[in-house]
Amino acid sequence: MPEFRPLSLVIGYMLIVLGASMTIPALFDFADGNRDWQGFLLSSALTVFTGFALVLAGRPPIDQAPQGLNLRQAFLLTSLSWVMISVFAALPFIFVSVRLTVPDAIFEAVSGFSTTGSTVIVGLDLTPPGTLLWRGLLQWAGGMGIVVMAITVLPLLQVGGMQLFHTESSDRSEEKILPRLTQISRAIGLIYLGLSLACALTFWACGMSAFDAIVHMMATVSTGGFSTSDKSFMNWDSPVLDMAAILFMFLGALPLMLFWPAIRGKPSNLFGNTQVMAYFTITAAFTAALTVFQWYGGIHEGWQALRYAAFSTVSIITSTGFMNVDYGLWGPFATSIFVVMMLIGGCSGSTAGGFKIFRLQILYRAVENQIRRIMYPNGIFTARYNERPLHDATISSVTGFLFLYLLTFAASGITLVALGLDMTTAFSAAASTIGNAGPGMGPIVGPAGNFSTLSAPQIWVLTLTMLLGRLELLTVYVLFLPRFWRH
Amino acid sequence: MPEFRPLSLVIGYMLIVLGASMTIPALFDFADGNRDWQGFLLSSALTVFTGFALVLAGRPPIDQAPQGLNLRQAFLLTSLSWVMISVFAALPFIFVSVRLTVPDAIFEAVSGFSTTGSTVIVGLDLTPPGTLLWRGLLQWAGGMGIVVMAITVLPLLQVGGMQLFHTESSDRSEEKILPRLTQISRAIGLIYLGLSLACALTFWACGMSAFDAIVHMMATVSTGGFSTSDKSFMNWDSPVLDMAAILFMFLGALPLMLFWPAIRGKPSNLFGNTQVMAYFTITAAFTAALTVFQWYGGIHEGWQALRYAAFSTVSIITSTGFMNVDYGLWGPFATSIFVVMMLIGGCSGSTAGGFKIFRLQILYRAVENQIRRIMYPNGIFTARYNERPLHDATISSVTGFLFLYLLTFAASGITLVALGLDMTTAFSAAASTIGNAGPGMGPIVGPAGNFSTLSAPQIWVLTLTMLLGRLELLTVYVLFLPRFWRH
Repeated sequence: MPEFRPLSLVIGYMLIVLGASMTIPALFDFADGNRDWQGFLLSSALTVFTGFALVLAGRPPIDQAPQGLNLRQAFLLTSLSWVMISVFAALPFIFVSVRLTVPDAIFEAVSGFSTTGSTVIVGLDLTPPGTLLWRGLLQWAGGMGIVVMAITVLPLLQVGGMQLFHTESSDRSEEKILPRLTQISRAIGLIYLGLSLACALTFWACGMSAFDAIVHMMATVSTGGFSTSDKSFMNWDSPVLDMAAILFMFLGALPLMLFWPAIRGKPSNLFGNTQVMAYFTITAAFTAALTVFQWYGGIHEGWQALRYAAFSTVSIITSTGFMNVDYGLWGPFATSIFVVMMLIGGCSGSTAGGFKIFRLQILYRAVENQIRRIMYPNGIFTARYNERPLHDATISSVTGFLFLYLLTFAASGITLVALGLDMTTAFSAAASTIGNAGPGMGPIVGPAGNFSTLSAPQIWVLTLTMLLGRLELLTVYVLFLPRFWRH
Repeated sequence: MPEFRPLSLVIGYMLIVLGASMTIPALFDFADGNRDWQGFLLSSALTVFTGFALVLAGRPPIDQAPQGLNLRQAFLLTSLSWVMISVFAALPFIFVSVRLTVPDAIFEAVSGFSTTGSTVIVGLDLTPPGTLLWRGLLQWAGGMGIVVMAITVLPLLQVGGMQLFHTESSDRSEEKILPRLTQISRAIGLIYLGLSLACALTFWACGMSAFDAIVHMMATVSTGGFSTSDKSFMNWDSPVLDMAAILFMFLGALPLMLFWPAIRGKPSNLFGNTQVMAYFTITAAFTAALTVFQWYGGIHEGWQALRYAAFSTVSIITSTGFMNVDYGLWGPFATSIFVVMMLIGGCSGSTAGGFKIFRLQILYRAVENQIRRIMYPNGIFTARYNERPLHDATISSVTGFLFLYLLTFAASGITLVALGLDMTTAFSAAASTIGNAGPGMGPIVGPAGNFSTLSAPQIWVLTLTMLLGRLELLTVYVLFLPRFWRH
């Protein structure tokens, strides 16, 4: 049984920050002259109060020095903090004018904080600014949280081959964790801030209002996908704006840590990276396929076809979920391609979701290696990844992840079908939420649809799937093992 | 570049046997008084003639002793013999009264010999006995071929974790291969014959005509699924016959080699086997789920629900493909379950297709092992399978197989969608053919449907997928590597 006190302390601090940040949308609504600021202040008070209570309950006794976290506590903290933040971040959606039900509000908050971007709110164009900003803020903070988690916590937890990224920057010895953690978080924070500034200014220069530019920036660099309009980027229908969005969505799905050496004059670290190159190639291949498909099928021609293919591909494979066209009307071939892209996702160490490119590469290496072993049974071969040896143990670890990923996908898809959805809707929604992409396919959850018509049980399943996908499955699943709770 | 002469010799002998066996359906048609016997004799002549030509071309020079096969030749022989036998086995379907087109005839032959059981022939109840018997014979011989291949050749080729079954019975040293091969084939042949005799007698005793009993026996013990009626077992609508079929389909999907010690008084080898136990559990679980589902959904009640659930589950998971009810009408939940079952398949070393139970178990062990490693980072753990250590290299080998299996499934499904099929039809047909199950889902390829309405390109894709599934993917894929053909 892990000691709960340190967890209470950390989550308490997080809730205080979360509650304090609810005053920002309150200010916007107050300035706008609508009464939603009251709902935000009420939520803020509840959240800050709970936060203080948890901090008090978690304080170490005076005669005892503060302790580091052990492995079990780290696992528990990771899942628990995501759940707690989502629950409290959902409060405003219940109290302000959108008046969501409890499952819908939690879905919206989890969708925001996990940077999925599926929404149950209809009529975004008429929604008060505070709510729109709050959704953006959740995605922006969630994006930052994911990157820090992917670089610092997950390699320690050795989840699904993440130990590949276990370098000196994430050493297991406890004394080293905290200082390095702060240092890396600061570097990532700077990169994320710089990217955000550049993105917001570009959107603004391309014709968005300052408010729209800021909210969309928050949903872009975090590859989240919440918009201020039901029509997403179709509302602006601007090729320049689309190009800007493509650029920043793509950048958001790259390993952010690699920007650091790139900025310091070593761009080869970023562009020479195996994962980045594969990611670029895969995105280009899918864009080309969808361009040819639209042209050949008589849907769109020439530059239009390329524009829609590139935007839709980048939007889905980076797991953002914006749209500049209703690609849900492109038929079953496009639907299959989009579901595959939802499952693939972006690079590790980015804000993107999905199975992740590096895992695909490792599986590819496993096939290559097996073929070599088959053909030269007496040879000894070691696969390599990013110029480092790739051990069978890492491959086996990615295998475990793949198996759980498929099981979770199949189980949530079948559960949704049992709860009354048709197969396309159910399995695309499962793929989209486990990959944290956003929209599914079909009339209900497709790019032109909305999750608001789903029933409460369906919403709970999808909420769980988003959380599982975001926390890379194993982080959550270990908590359900009796062994985890034994001494 | 491998030396072709020994391959020519072996395939030549196979074709002579194949051609000679075409006289059996010729006799049946002659006795029946229809003129199809001419088509069979023509096919027989062409096949035997080609066989002799290949044997002559492949004879070693007089001054040279006959040689064993090296690894590359073994790979090439495996794929090539399946293709050549299928092509020549397709000849009767072109020349007799069913008059199939070339792609349809090859599809039917591959479907038979790979024990898939999908058919393009409509009106089986009125089809001459020779053709029905030929389809049965193909499945029966194919089933035998697969078991021998799975025990002798595939472990040598180390395909997808098959090295687990690489015991002293499949030693790599070339001197040992042939005698052991003959010995094992003889044991398997005896078991297979015994099972066939028992099955045919049971079917006959349960009310089938002698001819129907023999053809269905051939399609049952091989988990093939060809019937003499368009309505499959619905034609008899007999609970006793259904129970007999359930029993023998299930036995056919067990590792046949394990019957040997079981017969000799050590049944624990069979029933205590990890794979067999897991197989039994999975089948029981799916049966229970589908029983409850039918009852709850008001489709069928009580024993009827259990009867239909058990038959359909065993039929699909053993990759047989018989039906005693049109489960295609059970809606999307059942459809999802059936597609999952098609992909899973039976035990290794049996006539069943699919991903195979032992691979699922190895993936499960990989997850277990990873969780242990995560929770006790300093411990050293070795997974075990069937009381033997399971090395990371084996897991990595299964990983490669899983990855290729998923890629092949997704690629063939998407190709079928691009060729004009709807998603349910396309992906269920892909799952059904790669798993060698037989029927897909949906109105076209579902249990009550027929593959005859598919276009030639769609038929070619499915023919390829059946072959790939049957030869465990890698056996075929290595042939497309430039490296394979280099010296």
